[in-house]
Amino acid sequence: MPKKRTVIAVGVAALALLGAGTSTVAANGQLPLVNRTAKGKVDQLGGAARLRGDQSRLIKESIKRTHARNVILFIGDGMGDSEITVARNYLEGAGGAFKGIDALPLTGNLTHYSVQKDTGKPDYTPDSASTGTAWSTGVKTYDNAISVDRHGKAFPTLLEQAKRSGMATGDVTTSEIQDATPAVEVSHISQRSCYGPVATTKTCPEAAKENGGRGSISEQLLTTRPDVTLGGGSTTFAETATAGAWKGKTLEQQAKERGYNYLTAKQDLAKVTSADQKKPLLGLFAPGNLPVKFAPLLATTNGAALPAQSCQPEPTFSQVPDLKTMTSKSIDLLSKNKAGKKNGFFLQVESASIDKKDHAADACGQIGETQQLDEAVTKALDFARRDGHTLVIVTADHAHTSQIVDGTTPGLTVNLATKEGSNMIVSYGTAPAGGSQQHTGTQLRVAGYGPGAGNLVGLIDQTDLHFIIGNTVNRR
Amino acid sequence: MPKKRTVIAVGVAALALLGAGTSTVAANGQLPLVNRTAKGKVDQLGGAARLRGDQSRLIKESIKRTHARNVILFIGDGMGDSEITVARNYLEGAGGAFKGIDALPLTGNLTHYSVQKDTGKPDYTPDSASTGTAWSTGVKTYDNAISVDRHGKAFPTLLEQAKRSGMATGDVTTSEIQDATPAVEVSHISQRSCYGPVATTKTCPEAAKENGGRGSISEQLLTTRPDVTLGGGSTTFAETATAGAWKGKTLEQQAKERGYNYLTAKQDLAKVTSADQKKPLLGLFAPGNLPVKFAPLLATTNGAALPAQSCQPEPTFSQVPDLKTMTSKSIDLLSKNKAGKKNGFFLQVESASIDKKDHAADACGQIGETQQLDEAVTKALDFARRDGHTLVIVTADHAHTSQIVDGTTPGLTVNLATKEGSNMIVSYGTAPAGGSQQHTGTQLRVAGYGPGAGNLVGLIDQTDLHFIIGNTVNRR
Repeated sequence: MPKKRTVIAVGVAALALLGAGTSTVAANGQLPLVNRTAKGKVDQLGGAARLRGDQSRLIKESIKRTHARNVILFIGDGMGDSEITVARNYLEGAGGAFKGIDALPLTGNLTHYSVQKDTGKPDYTPDSASTGTAWSTGVKTYDNAISVDRHGKAFPTLLEQAKRSGMATGDVTTSEIQDATPAVEVSHISQRSCYGPVATTKTCPEAAKENGGRGSISEQLLTTRPDVTLGGGSTTFAETATAGAWKGKTLEQQAKERGYNYLTAKQDLAKVTSADQKKPLLGLFAPGNLPVKFAPLLATTNGAALPAQSCQPEPTFSQVPDLKTMTSKSIDLLSKNKAGKKNGFFLQVESASIDKKDHAADACGQIGETQQLDEAVTKALDFARRDGHTLVIVTADHAHTSQIVDGTTPGLTVNLATKEGSNMIVSYGTAPAGGSQQHTGTQLRVAGYGPGAGNLVGLIDQTDLHFIIGNTVNRR
Repeated sequence: MPKKRTVIAVGVAALALLGAGTSTVAANGQLPLVNRTAKGKVDQLGGAARLRGDQSRLIKESIKRTHARNVILFIGDGMGDSEITVARNYLEGAGGAFKGIDALPLTGNLTHYSVQKDTGKPDYTPDSASTGTAWSTGVKTYDNAISVDRHGKAFPTLLEQAKRSGMATGDVTTSEIQDATPAVEVSHISQRSCYGPVATTKTCPEAAKENGGRGSISEQLLTTRPDVTLGGGSTTFAETATAGAWKGKTLEQQAKERGYNYLTAKQDLAKVTSADQKKPLLGLFAPGNLPVKFAPLLATTNGAALPAQSCQPEPTFSQVPDLKTMTSKSIDLLSKNKAGKKNGFFLQVESASIDKKDHAADACGQIGETQQLDEAVTKALDFARRDGHTLVIVTADHAHTSQIVDGTTPGLTVNLATKEGSNMIVSYGTAPAGGSQQHTGTQLRVAGYGPGAGNLVGLIDQTDLHFIIGNTVNRR
């Protein structure tokens, strides 16, 4: 022990650091959020530390209520811990913290396997359909299945259960609204690709209207009738129903005849002042998926050796509402409509293209979508903190490919200049150039704020989310 | 909503699942551990869920004490969430749970970057020296540095601070005891490679004995003098001191002359009944790193296409004490010696070759080392639960390469037959065949049990561990 005097001095400093009180606990009875940015210069003693003091009281405060009135479930599609870290390093710095994603005080690990259709045995690299079905229904199923189990049996979704409880409901995404993650809340079908009547006739005959089925994902969405549905995917609504009351009419016509406030223009969203079962809001702001925040920056076979680059704005992004705007609008509409005022609301919000851009080895695309999620979570936490009875959960449906590495790999790499002026190399090593990078099977982060969030701590499974949220949405 | 009656029935079932009580909370005042195996058949409603009921009370119980008497810090070297999931899927099944690693009730995320020596800016893919220095001293440093900051200044380590507080101390690993992770607790040196006098003269002249320095890592270990030091690395102890009181003598001779109980044979460990400052235990059971549990199973360029394989025993493994035995023995010795009885103990335990076998794209090697860590954690939790005043922390120093994928990648893959009879493909995509797979920069899992473990929940940094543990080891 070479430096006795230093030891003693640092010992006291260490105690002081932990004894500094829990400034993050709100004095006014609101549940606490946490600020986890590094406290100082990250190369100095204690400078990189994030804790402001012993947080036992903070945790105790955070778990003091168990039954929420409202639930907002955020899904970063493909947002493994690696994707979170890539985005944090780039946008906030390694010692920085997201204002939304990192502010939730309670955290756990979440397993997310699916099961094989024929055997029921685990599949360790599930898709977004089976993983979404896991939390929406509590049943693990085969890849491509939307809220049906491996035998084809439909199970009620969280959104359906919330409606049954008299709650207001919403389903928001940056993808096509028929994509797997939003679809699992509003439909039950054997194949995720059955967006509209055309695909359903061909691929999901059991659900086709002409066969007496529930119809395509889009048609089932209209029947499930959330108060608020926002995303992309208007193309499918030009398709025509094959049977039933709206046979021969487009799904857009059907939506309007069924009372929906059907929007496709960004500027119309701001004008909406109410959404409910009488006049549900259906905003579809792009033919397919919504544009992402940053222009593509693709990893290449020699990307690690190139100069570090920065993400640039995607010009078309401003043509659509961003995720925080859609989230804020949804919370506003749902909390104020009659059902929401009386019975609370359930809202699912997805940032979809973390996954899609990870598939494409597009680091900036993926980072921008993670930022969108963070901004939307921040808005939800603002509401939840004021409200005091809202459970906010942030997690992912499955993990993905991107890894932070030190140099060239057998896969594709890209060199990014981060906020703090370091270089970060991101590798995509599960598909060759031009191929689709694969989902990965690592356990995921889950984080929560509000009544019931204590159940997210430790190791849980994706299906646990169904029962944790079910504690609220099944209360009647 | 096609099936109204089903909805209502499932609604009640969901409530019952969460309302089933918290059977994991011990009635006798012991802090609770959790059982997180899937509750039923994983392809059935609720079968894959892990929670046994609302766990608010469990969390509340878990945080009711903040000051530990003993601390046991477990490091899985290179054990990212992906490595944990690979091992769990293979050994326990996707719906299974580790008895040790997964039993800790409180969990968080941990950032683990290092800093560049010249600029102090973050390096997003740190090594085990800089990451170990982060928790041992609270200072982030450059890669290769052992408990000195980027300017070369030494900061006191947790083990040194614990000794200063009159506590018993131990340092256990499956690697050479001079390897970075064990070294950060007992030495301060500019380069991790300076195991003995020979390398130190050449590479770390500032520390060389002949230059008036502290000596090599091995010599500093002897001076720091933990009560218990167990691992591999006897080769270095055949080197000869270049200056000082033991000039011309081997480090083994020096150890013995300084009162150490110096062991190299497995069977001698069982006979040890005491270890303290008068006669510290130094067990070095292999010339270099200890053998691992499973024989190598290397990923190859077409491994995903081969039939699924199982891990086979490594014949040499039985020649050395396993990690759970070394851990149990250490806990027994430290809790019963005079310092431990009076002031408690600090013990660091590393499973080192998760990292080393991940570098080698050896899936079975990596899985066996994760299993060793789990078994050792289980032993520690047995003690901590009985003791009631022991903080147990399980985390990693950095993340690594292995990913669970669906098929062939541009890197190396291997197809494993898991416990439950599914196939799991593991990919190593950051180095070509024969190369060393890279560390990766994703945030890590941290988990804890016992007094103070509430501070591990949420996003923390690796340096926070220093101050959380420092709350115990700096109490005097």
